[in-house]
Amino acid sequence: MSILTTSLAEFAAGPVSTTSQARIVTSLSALDWLAVGRAGAEEPVSRIVRQMVLGEGGLDQARLFGGGAAPLRAAALVNGTVSHALDYDDTHFAYIGHPSVAVFPAALAIAAWEDRPLVDLLEAALVGMETSIRIGLWLGRQHYQAGFHQTATAGAFGAAVAAGRIMGFDTAQMQALLGLTATKAAGQKAQFGTMGKPYNAGIAASNGVEAALLIRNGFRPNADAIEGPHGFGATHLAAEDTSSALDGLGEEWLFESVSHKFHACCHGLHAALEAARDLDIAEPEVAEIRVKTHPRWMSVCNQSEPTTGLGAKFSYRTVIAMQAMGFDTGLPGSYSDKICADPRLQSLRDRIKVEADDSLSETQAQLSLLRRDGVRREATHDLLSPVPLSDREDRVRSKAAKLIGADEADAIWSMLRTGGRAADLADRLTD
Amino acid sequence: MSILTTSLAEFAAGPVSTTSQARIVTSLSALDWLAVGRAGAEEPVSRIVRQMVLGEGGLDQARLFGGGAAPLRAAALVNGTVSHALDYDDTHFAYIGHPSVAVFPAALAIAAWEDRPLVDLLEAALVGMETSIRIGLWLGRQHYQAGFHQTATAGAFGAAVAAGRIMGFDTAQMQALLGLTATKAAGQKAQFGTMGKPYNAGIAASNGVEAALLIRNGFRPNADAIEGPHGFGATHLAAEDTSSALDGLGEEWLFESVSHKFHACCHGLHAALEAARDLDIAEPEVAEIRVKTHPRWMSVCNQSEPTTGLGAKFSYRTVIAMQAMGFDTGLPGSYSDKICADPRLQSLRDRIKVEADDSLSETQAQLSLLRRDGVRREATHDLLSPVPLSDREDRVRSKAAKLIGADEADAIWSMLRTGGRAADLADRLTD
Repeated sequence: MSILTTSLAEFAAGPVSTTSQARIVTSLSALDWLAVGRAGAEEPVSRIVRQMVLGEGGLDQARLFGGGAAPLRAAALVNGTVSHALDYDDTHFAYIGHPSVAVFPAALAIAAWEDRPLVDLLEAALVGMETSIRIGLWLGRQHYQAGFHQTATAGAFGAAVAAGRIMGFDTAQMQALLGLTATKAAGQKAQFGTMGKPYNAGIAASNGVEAALLIRNGFRPNADAIEGPHGFGATHLAAEDTSSALDGLGEEWLFESVSHKFHACCHGLHAALEAARDLDIAEPEVAEIRVKTHPRWMSVCNQSEPTTGLGAKFSYRTVIAMQAMGFDTGLPGSYSDKICADPRLQSLRDRIKVEADDSLSETQAQLSLLRRDGVRREATHDLLSPVPLSDREDRVRSKAAKLIGADEADAIWSMLRTGGRAADLADRLTD
Repeated sequence: MSILTTSLAEFAAGPVSTTSQARIVTSLSALDWLAVGRAGAEEPVSRIVRQMVLGEGGLDQARLFGGGAAPLRAAALVNGTVSHALDYDDTHFAYIGHPSVAVFPAALAIAAWEDRPLVDLLEAALVGMETSIRIGLWLGRQHYQAGFHQTATAGAFGAAVAAGRIMGFDTAQMQALLGLTATKAAGQKAQFGTMGKPYNAGIAASNGVEAALLIRNGFRPNADAIEGPHGFGATHLAAEDTSSALDGLGEEWLFESVSHKFHACCHGLHAALEAARDLDIAEPEVAEIRVKTHPRWMSVCNQSEPTTGLGAKFSYRTVIAMQAMGFDTGLPGSYSDKICADPRLQSLRDRIKVEADDSLSETQAQLSLLRRDGVRREATHDLLSPVPLSDREDRVRSKAAKLIGADEADAIWSMLRTGGRAADLADRLTD
């Protein structure tokens, strides 16, 4: 058996030593995942996938975002898709994937159905998300650049491991689980910008649940189908050494550095919005704003004069103008056709210039504000700079409060921090 | 929109001009698929996947091999897996894949649920299998050699197209369907020799049904996700020009040359068994048999002295000895631990020599029989040599009769040739 599979299986099946930071960040991601899932429950893609699943009937094994219940595999498909529908969930930049949307739908479905304590769910989700990140690191840039969607491919392994851990799998079962997941893990980057992107997260979550159910039923796959000459790594263009996945496994939690989104728009805009936030720009004082960003974003999210809410989510000039005018860029509803047509916004937008600067990294942006009084102020932000945990907690809870109401957000946070049953959390998938 | 997707979508959605040969071969494949599925219904992998699906409850939308019913997606997963469990279904050598096991489970589920005539099911299955073969040709050798299982990857597109055709999709819906399938089509060759291989067929069938249901519900994917720099072809190592898929599309039915298996063992042994059949070898007269085969098979199915029924299925010496002794190599039950331990078989086996000959193709084998009376006789067989349609019909019907009984086989064949409803065929998934 190959080293990557063996090591990950031992990690996934064995006792783990978590840090306080890892536990708190996992709880924050659970709250964040739940809030963005509820906020996305009525998006078109959410309705379409939920409609298919509800049309099949089946046992009410797991609750769905948006209402209703379904068997475990089907619920994971729906909840994975729904929670990624707004593209507002967490991101891990080390492997460029969204860990929560693949793993929580799988872990919550199984844990609630088996009536497990919330603490077991959170630990299994953490182990699963850590697995996604580490397999993602091993698959590496080449895998992503070629066109595979890491959220879905690496994510399926994380979802499977989280599900298997809740089911109490031993190391041999975990190896088999990883091997079986390798034959079904899939998802294309070519679907970006369409309903296919959130669906990919649903695929990952559902694949993980299905693989775990089959292994529990006695399915015997090739347990060594990740590495080797015809393994998943070979077919899916993994380029990295196994040390990229295994260094510090079980000692260091890469998941701790997951990023939460605080603006409901393209991630390429976030560093600039954070820099603007630091400058606390007020519309009337603006003579000019210059935005510098990494060149790759120029073709991704630099729409100059968008006319739709969707277009606004991919426009530096629009989102910075919105923020300076006091619109909440953290609310999906703020991005509207109406705001794009607002003459005040258009006037301010025309005073904002965007340029590429290849001295910046992809997670950095620099803003230079020239005020009408001639004063120039500058700010640079890097999304990778550590955020103190207490600040992070404040912002995630505040985001959740905006999306699902302060009382709900507080109640869920309290549940996540004080324990209870997984089924109690599942009850919060709808209000 | 790219040429491959556009052309295949137009073909799949439009009227088609079938040949008598294509229609008869499709009916033979339907009978063959049904017989091998029924024969494989209680294999361990069949029970495991069926158990998972039946454990979910759900509407009785489609019947299952082995009994019971399930929603459409789930039924396709089960029936795809079950019908490939014995690895005794049809094979198309042009793309090295098994067309029926991906396509029929999808097409039959939808057609029976929508109460469509059998003739519509058969036409949709033919169009779907033709699509699998042509996408498989485009993916090509490099795709397969790298480690992708064509039955599952190319098969998913065929299953989707068959399902979409029964649903009455227009060209635009077919394009979307192909694009959506691209994000989920998966399956590894690394699973060969394990339960993962038949499961891959189930994955393909289920992926096709799911994609069709979602497109019908209004899902909008990237409809152009097969070709292009980040499309399925790029990520999945397609190496061939689109002409490999499109030459003669709609005029020539590549499916006509599908091969049916008449021996319940590794396909690498079939040419030798057919040559032995031509020689009509009788055990007592054998002084020596020399088998020549393509070198690639030496590592695949040349177990010298297997001790198990499974081992026997990968042993030239054993299967030829079995045939000479009058055992029916077309019956899965003939391959047993007991036969491997039979001293008569072992004695005969010791008179059989196997050698590689790189002047032979992978589908050819040569047998040289030296009789005790000193007479030498030789026969060569190529699995690609055309078999007269009437012979093919005789052999497929005889195989089906062995597997499910002559009355059942005759009744199903009669139904396939004279019409009726798809639901009538679905009723025959169990006896």
